[in-house]
Amino acid sequence: MKITANDPKRQTWLPVPDKSDFPIQNIPFGVFLTRDDVITIGTRIGDTAIDLGALHQLGYFEGIPLTDDIFLQDTLNDFISDGKKTWRLVRNRIAELFDVKDKSLQNHDEHKERVLFAMDEIEMQLPVQVGDYTDFYSSIEHATNVGTMFRDPDNALLPNWLHIPVGYHGRSSSIIPSGIPVHRPLGQKLPKGADNPKLGPSRLVDFELEMAFITTDANHLGEPIPIDEAEDYIFGLVLFNDWSARDIQKWEYVPLGPFLAKSFASSISPWIVTLDALEPFRTDSPKPLKKQLEYLQYKGKKSFDIKLQVAIQPEDKVETVVANTNFKYMYWNMSQQLAHHTINGCPVNSGDMMGSGTISGPTPDSYGSMLELSWRGEKPVKLKEGGDRKFIEDNDTVIIRGYCENKDIRLGFGEVSTKLLPVFKKQ
Amino acid sequence: MKITANDPKRQTWLPVPDKSDFPIQNIPFGVFLTRDDVITIGTRIGDTAIDLGALHQLGYFEGIPLTDDIFLQDTLNDFISDGKKTWRLVRNRIAELFDVKDKSLQNHDEHKERVLFAMDEIEMQLPVQVGDYTDFYSSIEHATNVGTMFRDPDNALLPNWLHIPVGYHGRSSSIIPSGIPVHRPLGQKLPKGADNPKLGPSRLVDFELEMAFITTDANHLGEPIPIDEAEDYIFGLVLFNDWSARDIQKWEYVPLGPFLAKSFASSISPWIVTLDALEPFRTDSPKPLKKQLEYLQYKGKKSFDIKLQVAIQPEDKVETVVANTNFKYMYWNMSQQLAHHTINGCPVNSGDMMGSGTISGPTPDSYGSMLELSWRGEKPVKLKEGGDRKFIEDNDTVIIRGYCENKDIRLGFGEVSTKLLPVFKKQ
Repeated sequence: MKITANDPKRQTWLPVPDKSDFPIQNIPFGVFLTRDDVITIGTRIGDTAIDLGALHQLGYFEGIPLTDDIFLQDTLNDFISDGKKTWRLVRNRIAELFDVKDKSLQNHDEHKERVLFAMDEIEMQLPVQVGDYTDFYSSIEHATNVGTMFRDPDNALLPNWLHIPVGYHGRSSSIIPSGIPVHRPLGQKLPKGADNPKLGPSRLVDFELEMAFITTDANHLGEPIPIDEAEDYIFGLVLFNDWSARDIQKWEYVPLGPFLAKSFASSISPWIVTLDALEPFRTDSPKPLKKQLEYLQYKGKKSFDIKLQVAIQPEDKVETVVANTNFKYMYWNMSQQLAHHTINGCPVNSGDMMGSGTISGPTPDSYGSMLELSWRGEKPVKLKEGGDRKFIEDNDTVIIRGYCENKDIRLGFGEVSTKLLPVFKKQ
Repeated sequence: MKITANDPKRQTWLPVPDKSDFPIQNIPFGVFLTRDDVITIGTRIGDTAIDLGALHQLGYFEGIPLTDDIFLQDTLNDFISDGKKTWRLVRNRIAELFDVKDKSLQNHDEHKERVLFAMDEIEMQLPVQVGDYTDFYSSIEHATNVGTMFRDPDNALLPNWLHIPVGYHGRSSSIIPSGIPVHRPLGQKLPKGADNPKLGPSRLVDFELEMAFITTDANHLGEPIPIDEAEDYIFGLVLFNDWSARDIQKWEYVPLGPFLAKSFASSISPWIVTLDALEPFRTDSPKPLKKQLEYLQYKGKKSFDIKLQVAIQPEDKVETVVANTNFKYMYWNMSQQLAHHTINGCPVNSGDMMGSGTISGPTPDSYGSMLELSWRGEKPVKLKEGGDRKFIEDNDTVIIRGYCENKDIRLGFGEVSTKLLPVFKKQ
């Protein structure tokens, strides 16, 4: 089925500010609380949020096989379960409806009143109930930087890294949408030279600039997903900040991996940009440095050119962009990640979230964590206002943004913005 | 509130076979499909399954604050969210109703027809939708055995082990109830002496004898659970078989921990035995070998005396019990695990599952995995029928059982029984 929603020439009758991440070619999906305190599924064009529940009730999705309440839910999980064909039909219909040439809704003031909201009238929610969350470790620059700092600069990559899209299970319950603040975590840390750990606030709180993809129901227990089919099960992507506490991590992570150093919070941008919308921005992944096993070999362009940046904004100060990187630097792509994740028969469900791992680029200004940007605190990062940073300080806000651009269009993810509060104190 | 359901003197009017795990003092909770193809929440006395949805509709829970549909659901999550007070009221009421002295239901044939099922008329389901699943590593004997085998017999425990209830995030989507078979997983393994891995069936499939506890909604993002309150948030326990593929694990697990070596399946017993029911079997945990940080210090008996065994049954052969162990051997108890899990503010929700880690005892016949029982294959385990075993072979069924016993009563968990099928082949 043709993705007519992607037509770069299409104009909309809704206002779209210059350089908006949300032209009519984007049509992302999210969940929001309306001014009437109703939770609904919606999309966004420019700075207008569109209530898909109301649109559906008004009959605008006639002919598309959807249950009556599919958009009147507090998560996208059921809609995502409907599968790629349905997502396309819905996105194509939305594109038609808001096309400047279409008058059906455009000239219906009463319907517009029910369906359209200004962005400042609504409150974005978590778009899915995350069943399982997996975090990969798929940027070769990030893995090399970490290996150089903590192990051996001459053998920075571990022996399995070039063979396996290394990943681990993360905690779903602490995934939060943009705007929700996070407390600096308490945890065990081993003071330098000490034999015994102490409990205290993490002093090395860090962001990790990542993206995450969200899946639909893909396979049954026991059944691997072939790499050529993997993209059929990817609904879309969000920006992902995998908050990390480096001192807690160092003490706890051998032998079973990071645990409390990560599970205090991970923040996501609230609009899921569909894989369909990203179609024009396909690009090659880096060339494999070693031959990969057959189940990880793919044809065609499986990566996407998504420009990413991260900024730090101290309280009441201007923000400073501290890194610029790109999703295309990922050594292992999403299809490889999904093929690997299921090679053992592990089931993947609607609403599962898979993080890329920190996305670092080849140059020091393209590293995706403070650990790397400040080289574990040895080279503090200068901010325009508010001093230097080795790691994140209390009341700093970390903002990740991402967008795609070609000669015809620009579309993006908006942002994930999260403030770090001091340690939680019981009232 | 008194747990009157635990009265050891109480007799029931339902038949209870000798040595049953399900006397009227147990009253576990589960979810089953009835002979009429209806999913309901239920309990079990002897070999009779009791439909709590029907009991509630018939008014037998009058006076207890329950929503009308609380038991007419396909998971226990909402009931568990109702909290400990409600669980107690319901268990106490069920005990009264099936007390031999109570005639209300006993003499009502029409109601009994609607409420009671023989065990072979029903099909047990997964009792909860598992939001997040965490697996600990809390048996000192198991950690010591693994450290001795793979690292250094003189320093078998890693430096953090005596300070941290070490744990890691697991995969929820592959948690299955007893009776569902599992395919031998495919995965990457590094052949001995080779530089590059191969893809193939795991040759070292293992069980891990564990128990898992199931939580209710406990805390908000940022808010630790004090150790003295931890038990308030534990609904109950199940038997847990954390299937493991040792060859896949060895190649993948550094540095981020086990991933596909575990996520192909974990099986649980279908009846959740409440923490309340286990009250008479409280016992001391092992004495700490090192002073523990204050947030991990507790008063009273926080462990439970639960006898555990694991058996292997080759196809069409008799089973052989290969190990006997006990939940009380756990060095870190559930209260410590939950206090540690939330010290960083990680939210715990209704339906979360926390595995103990392999429970090994002090003697070679009390080890909780084939890895330990066969000492990584060096000492094959003799079966009564079907040959020796270093690890689990195709079409073997692994059965874990557990029960508590004192001079007054015996109650138990039933079993988790899982057959290992050959590698999945696409039809």
